[in-house]
Amino acid sequence: MELLENYIKQHGKYADGGIVIVNSFLNHRMDINLIDAIGKDFYDHFKDSKPTLILTVEASGIGIACLAARYFNVPVLFAKKSASKNVKGDLYTAEVRSFTKGGVNNISVSSDFISSDDRVLIIDDFLAEGQASLGLLNICEQAKAHVCGIGICIEKYFQNGGHILREKGIDLHSQAILDLDENGNLIFKHI
Amino acid sequence: MELLENYIKQHGKYADGGIVIVNSFLNHRMDINLIDAIGKDFYDHFKDSKPTLILTVEASGIGIACLAARYFNVPVLFAKKSASKNVKGDLYTAEVRSFTKGGVNNISVSSDFISSDDRVLIIDDFLAEGQASLGLLNICEQAKAHVCGIGICIEKYFQNGGHILREKGIDLHSQAILDLDENGNLIFKHI
Repeated sequence: MELLENYIKQHGKYADGGIVIVNSFLNHRMDINLIDAIGKDFYDHFKDSKPTLILTVEASGIGIACLAARYFNVPVLFAKKSASKNVKGDLYTAEVRSFTKGGVNNISVSSDFISSDDRVLIIDDFLAEGQASLGLLNICEQAKAHVCGIGICIEKYFQNGGHILREKGIDLHSQAILDLDENGNLIFKHI
Repeated sequence: MELLENYIKQHGKYADGGIVIVNSFLNHRMDINLIDAIGKDFYDHFKDSKPTLILTVEASGIGIACLAARYFNVPVLFAKKSASKNVKGDLYTAEVRSFTKGGVNNISVSSDFISSDDRVLIIDDFLAEGQASLGLLNICEQAKAHVCGIGICIEKYFQNGGHILREKGIDLHSQAILDLDENGNLIFKHI
């Protein structure tokens, strides 16, 4: 997605270890016109698979999922990272390791809001080792829901997540794919 | 806001202590047409104050803030509850006590993304004791930003937050206000 690549080129900042900081437009401050275009791009890619539900995980995925959901006209369900009095009853829970924050989180959704009748589009901002996506897939499996595909804003091709998901035969749509060249510099990859 | 009141009447669930569960449409599963109408209602109320930035706090506020931001055509900045490699540099930090989850969180935003040039609209899903709103106001004070007002989906009138904010002279717009009648039942209040 050219617009997102241009944002990353112009406004992204880089740190050691292939970390790209996009908090000026994507996952802290959110440039709403970009996020809306991101939602439209997910719609253009996934509309024919007719999702009934967009599933994401708090926190950065929520805004992106909501703007995509407007185009699809379907609800958003966001998995929670911690127990809350607001989530009652039976849960589907999956374990997710975070490589950026460290540690392991359980993510949970109420079993009331996802079922075998659902066609689920999973959306998230980043794909690195794939832990969040695998956790969300696990939740879909528990609910026996059909997975239409996974939409990602930024995939880090030099980490394993994308490869794992593609090997599973999942329709993975990454809007910007970052790889490392032989000198360790981040480059855009088009596959 | 009649539409939100109707959702609460039809789909809200109640627990002891004045807790209302709206996770089937507002803060876990999100009914996107409702959230869009909520965003439009915030726009109708606050458009003349010409905000340049919508400020919220993860996680439930983000989707609501993003759909409102589309109408205002301004960016969203969401405060984070935990340290992350994705937030670098100088931070504005405020302490927030959570009555639903228990404990005290620090919420933080990067000082790069809010300044004395900003006219800030604060948006959140719930207002109870007002801790989150007061934390976000504190961040605006640190940044010397102008506060246009605070937009809330559901205010619990029988808790202190709304009273504290109104006493400060803040333009507080609560779309649905819940109070307790003499028998301890939740009722809608129109002020």
